[in-house]
Amino acid sequence: MKELIYHRHFIPALQRHKTKPAVVDGTYEATFEQHADRVYRLVHALKHQCGVSKSDRFAVLARNSHEYLELFHAAFLGGGIINPLNLRLSPKELNYIIQDSGAEIVFVDKHFAPLLALALSESERFPIRKSILIGEEGDPSEFHYEDMIRAASPILPSEPEEEDPVVLMYTGGTTGLPKGVVLTQRAKMLNQYHGRLARPKMNDTTVSLIQTPMFHVASTGALLSTYAVGGTTVIIPGFEPRLVMNEIERHQVTSTTMVPTMIGMMMAHPDFSPQRLRSLEQMTYGASPMPGALLGKLLAASPELELFQGYGMTESSASLTSLSPEDHRKGGAYLRSVGRPVIGVELSIRDKDGQEVATGDIGEVCARGGNFMTEYWNKREATQEVFRNGWYHTGDAGYLDEDGYLFLVDRVKDMIVTGGENVYSTEVENAIASHPAVRQVAVIGIPDEVWGEAVHAIVVLVEGASVSGEDLMEHARESVAGYKVPKSIAFRNEPLPLSGAMKVLKRDLRAPYWQDQERSIS
Amino acid sequence: MKELIYHRHFIPALQRHKTKPAVVDGTYEATFEQHADRVYRLVHALKHQCGVSKSDRFAVLARNSHEYLELFHAAFLGGGIINPLNLRLSPKELNYIIQDSGAEIVFVDKHFAPLLALALSESERFPIRKSILIGEEGDPSEFHYEDMIRAASPILPSEPEEEDPVVLMYTGGTTGLPKGVVLTQRAKMLNQYHGRLARPKMNDTTVSLIQTPMFHVASTGALLSTYAVGGTTVIIPGFEPRLVMNEIERHQVTSTTMVPTMIGMMMAHPDFSPQRLRSLEQMTYGASPMPGALLGKLLAASPELELFQGYGMTESSASLTSLSPEDHRKGGAYLRSVGRPVIGVELSIRDKDGQEVATGDIGEVCARGGNFMTEYWNKREATQEVFRNGWYHTGDAGYLDEDGYLFLVDRVKDMIVTGGENVYSTEVENAIASHPAVRQVAVIGIPDEVWGEAVHAIVVLVEGASVSGEDLMEHARESVAGYKVPKSIAFRNEPLPLSGAMKVLKRDLRAPYWQDQERSIS
Repeated sequence: MKELIYHRHFIPALQRHKTKPAVVDGTYEATFEQHADRVYRLVHALKHQCGVSKSDRFAVLARNSHEYLELFHAAFLGGGIINPLNLRLSPKELNYIIQDSGAEIVFVDKHFAPLLALALSESERFPIRKSILIGEEGDPSEFHYEDMIRAASPILPSEPEEEDPVVLMYTGGTTGLPKGVVLTQRAKMLNQYHGRLARPKMNDTTVSLIQTPMFHVASTGALLSTYAVGGTTVIIPGFEPRLVMNEIERHQVTSTTMVPTMIGMMMAHPDFSPQRLRSLEQMTYGASPMPGALLGKLLAASPELELFQGYGMTESSASLTSLSPEDHRKGGAYLRSVGRPVIGVELSIRDKDGQEVATGDIGEVCARGGNFMTEYWNKREATQEVFRNGWYHTGDAGYLDEDGYLFLVDRVKDMIVTGGENVYSTEVENAIASHPAVRQVAVIGIPDEVWGEAVHAIVVLVEGASVSGEDLMEHARESVAGYKVPKSIAFRNEPLPLSGAMKVLKRDLRAPYWQDQERSIS
Repeated sequence: MKELIYHRHFIPALQRHKTKPAVVDGTYEATFEQHADRVYRLVHALKHQCGVSKSDRFAVLARNSHEYLELFHAAFLGGGIINPLNLRLSPKELNYIIQDSGAEIVFVDKHFAPLLALALSESERFPIRKSILIGEEGDPSEFHYEDMIRAASPILPSEPEEEDPVVLMYTGGTTGLPKGVVLTQRAKMLNQYHGRLARPKMNDTTVSLIQTPMFHVASTGALLSTYAVGGTTVIIPGFEPRLVMNEIERHQVTSTTMVPTMIGMMMAHPDFSPQRLRSLEQMTYGASPMPGALLGKLLAASPELELFQGYGMTESSASLTSLSPEDHRKGGAYLRSVGRPVIGVELSIRDKDGQEVATGDIGEVCARGGNFMTEYWNKREATQEVFRNGWYHTGDAGYLDEDGYLFLVDRVKDMIVTGGENVYSTEVENAIASHPAVRQVAVIGIPDEVWGEAVHAIVVLVEGASVSGEDLMEHARESVAGYKVPKSIAFRNEPLPLSGAMKVLKRDLRAPYWQDQERSIS
């Protein structure tokens, strides 16, 4: 089958909009025709200059750029499997991922060439045959992206099959070694349909600003669909509040994706003023709920702005739910929800025996749809572990209300079972974090002979502040039930350990307590 | 694969909207839950009371009703392959289709039970084992739909595969025996995605009025998607201007599909007034272009109404193109276009050697996409004939302009090749039809020793009017080039022969001229 492939979206857009601006990246501009010419050349070069066939992986370690967009489009037109690397990883982690993916070719920009060199130095054997430098500048002894493009021919690439893998994206890190998520043309194209039905205003008047990192699955929706609908893709190397506002204003950007932290930073910037965002019609955010105060400020600045919250993960490539602009206007409890399943995705909340729980009850969020990965690369057991009875198990604990809105409460693995009661670590963390002396807090379960697990908090205080464990327990008791209040609190001087995706590594915090025992939820 | 099946759309809608009105049909009303209960029972009854498995065909010969909707939904939930029968067919044609489809069960309403009896009397051997009478009234010796539903159990139907056929719809009649178009779950679900991206306002505030016949592919979009988006489906037995306006007003209908003739009849009705249509947000039309005057009246009456024109055929289930509300507002030449390909569909204009022609040149309209039929039922050669080099050949002649708008000019088979020049019969017909004495006209090619084919017109005059052939030729010469003017004109007293789909049977008109010869375009 060849209908659910990117060709079917890319080529009609190209035919219709040949001379219209397709890509803007700083001073670089390309029409639909110019962009396609470069992408076709890149597919040709991948094959004939790099020896990459459509089932081979090539890695990218770079900030956002039009070349990165070209590499994505080349992969989607059958040029190979793109393996975008997280820029926040350590050399050791990068080394592991490249070994695991078996990528023989890596595209790197000048900012990350030194990190790549460090990663390569981590081991003697390495699959990489060639690294290609993105951009015009740099060491003339290097192999340059532009030279490759110039030497290649712009030939319409032949069509892949729907089931051909096209993206290999690594995820995890809070729960063991990173796992490579294998996404096919079909999964990505269905995710496009689902996402565009949830955000129907995408069309040839759309101007998208890509400010989230291109290595992240949250960016791929706009990377693929903006060109496909005949819109213009504006790219910045990475998030920087002043640059975001400048580019929105300069290119009359209509649509972008941010996380609430980025929105907050932009609005707190001295250069911020509401009229600079006037062209924005829709904004998608995710990763965390929007604080009510921030939402209020944002809607006061841009009353017509349509806000969408999305929830998903790399494994679902990515959209599972969407909180609509209407839901945002309703406000209240809806703002704590991640929305309702997008068209094409089904959700089910299940207990640990795999049984569906009643509406309103908490369990593990499970989902299915055509947008899911086929497997974790070379990890059959891990794949079977997440796909059980036809449902993908997200590892998130949550519940559905009567109208089908999903509310997340915790990661399943971070849930604490004490005396038969479930305690959601995030709820307890919120209860402690509201104390003015607390800078960071993580709540975990530690072994307890009587209760199975006991609630334990690890706290980093604001510099110069002091408070006793008892006082913090007392403070928590004001907002949560007695059995949820930590039985013990440990103070810590250094910041909490974070993963590459900036999540607290609770696994590492739990480790010293569980050395001789196994947790029933592992 | 099971992702592109109707379960994935039907069940989430049911879960979300249980107690909301789903179906209204005169005095009958059902919530989402009540409708699903009846559909689940129907799937159960088809299997256990009728012996229909998911690959068996069942026929329906009935006016629009909630039962007809239930039969469609039952088929799409794996209850069998629905074979909706055209109500305008002759007993002989019906007999042929039922023999060809091999349907052993037929659902019929009291209006069409006599026609079915006539059709059955056409032959001695017949696949039909059982006919089931829709509705409560009727002969108590008959097998009744409601009895069947009552006796069945409402069990969630098991899931079909994407590639399972689900609709067998007969088409043709202007070009030989009717052919059964086999449409799968996948094709119908992808058509849903394509159509909904073209008309993005479908959501749980949608109230759809079904007034086009349910046996026609133009109705299936709304039949499937209204429930899936959480909207309400309002059904009338068939088009009747007063009833259409009453139901739009009574149920605050937001969306409907009509053909221009129906729109004209409604607006010419003495009971018409613009405010009766106030709730309408969008209207889809097809089958013929919208006359400029009618469009003007419609937009004057409902300035906010969003108009969509669709072009497609049963084989493409159905949407190929869409002319958007913005295109309608631009007016002018755009109104003669059927619009641009919907997302997921590619068009290509090809000459008779299968080569793509240049932009603006006329050729055969070809298309591809995931929405196409798999085959004509039991007709391998006819299937191969329409799918060549991966493209479906529509048999329509047309061209694409530079912005990708499709303009249709004729049926390829009705095109006349005279002295090496192509003449489009519709253009010549328009030139003659504008004469006040002409009631009907058909232009065909007849054998000519010098020119290969000669342009020939068959004319039915307005009662009491008279005009000579020479005068009509002179009249035509005012609007078309000399080589397009008919070389001969025949007058006819009886009306032109029409197909079941109300198209002029040019094949029958050509036959007497071509008895001893074969046309090169056949």
